[in-house]
Amino acid sequence: MEEHFQSSEKVRDFVIGMSDGLTVPFALAAGLSGAVDQTSIVITAGLAEIAAGSIAMGLGGYLAGRTEIEHYESEERREYDEVENKHEVEIQETKEIFAEYGVSEELQEKIAREMAKNPKKWVDFMMRFELGLERPDNNRAQQSAFIIGISYVIGGLIPLSAYFFASDAQQGLIYSTIITVICLIIFGFIKSKLTGQPLLKGAMRVTMIGVLAAAAAFGIAKAIV
Amino acid sequence: MEEHFQSSEKVRDFVIGMSDGLTVPFALAAGLSGAVDQTSIVITAGLAEIAAGSIAMGLGGYLAGRTEIEHYESEERREYDEVENKHEVEIQETKEIFAEYGVSEELQEKIAREMAKNPKKWVDFMMRFELGLERPDNNRAQQSAFIIGISYVIGGLIPLSAYFFASDAQQGLIYSTIITVICLIIFGFIKSKLTGQPLLKGAMRVTMIGVLAAAAAFGIAKAIV
Repeated sequence: MEEHFQSSEKVRDFVIGMSDGLTVPFALAAGLSGAVDQTSIVITAGLAEIAAGSIAMGLGGYLAGRTEIEHYESEERREYDEVENKHEVEIQETKEIFAEYGVSEELQEKIAREMAKNPKKWVDFMMRFELGLERPDNNRAQQSAFIIGISYVIGGLIPLSAYFFASDAQQGLIYSTIITVICLIIFGFIKSKLTGQPLLKGAMRVTMIGVLAAAAAFGIAKAIV
Repeated sequence: MEEHFQSSEKVRDFVIGMSDGLTVPFALAAGLSGAVDQTSIVITAGLAEIAAGSIAMGLGGYLAGRTEIEHYESEERREYDEVENKHEVEIQETKEIFAEYGVSEELQEKIAREMAKNPKKWVDFMMRFELGLERPDNNRAQQSAFIIGISYVIGGLIPLSAYFFASDAQQGLIYSTIITVICLIIFGFIKSKLTGQPLLKGAMRVTMIGVLAAAAAFGIAKAIV
């Protein structure tokens, strides 16, 4: 069960990186095709974007994960300190959590005192229910960032590959649009399936973002030249 | 207090969009500067990227927010249904939450029965404590996506502006790097301040991502030409 859950998270990261990778490099290449003829410039810009985007997403995601872990650990130290040195204040805070859900004063008191007997579990409870923090998984954050970064590269190479086989940028744009829209629909479906949203609606949303981004980039580049 | 919180969330969204906007368009422009001489191509590609990136981030964020709301509402309907039709199963699930934190069987039973008297609050409790879902704020998601998108545009225009005043792309790259690194450090500081991490470390992380992304994009573009 745990294994199944882990592997579907990997698939989810793959799909996230892939659908973002399909979107931005596709749109950039489409935009440039409105301004230049040579496929070589489109390909160079596209590859530069893929490098930049995958590092920003991958490394950015990894460091955000590190930050989250440090934040959790510093809050946890503070909770341990409070449980020890401001015991009655923490009891009061615990009671307030239950008061919100309509638990009687008497029962609030009982449950807070009972929880206080096990400081580790009490701190875990306060971390999750007072501060709304889940213990972040260190390995997960690293792995997730890595998978997202790599999938961004793969996703970005799909729209760009069309320009390798085209004689000029305009022809490349046509091929690229066909390939990318098909892939966006497929990945939109998979993404919706994984996040439990209506399949058609979800696939249309993902595709629409890609097409709108490309149209805007194309319009802007066309307007400059 | 509430107002203060709201406005700092807006600042946070601004800083997120801004630091991403500084990173990817900066890196793309740097990469292209390694391959072409004309600033016009760098500027066109940069603006196309800003259009694509801001739409992907802004619209993508907005739709992710909508998806989250739909997911919350569908889970909430299911919890209401379970509270009504699988009452004893839900009582058992509520008890299990408390069992995790070392609450005695007797007290688990009492508190679950007491909570069950108010179905609305009970469902709220299960949404948060069984499923780990916070009620998403509809307006917040829209506003957040809009601010992030706009800040991405502003952030992206900073590294790009250098190329307007440069005679060729290589000179533009030097100006752009100076301006952008200064801005990345400043925004890294603000971001760290807002997320409560060590200021210097946080600022260095943000700056490092930008510089690494630019270096990779530059290296790749240089290698192709």
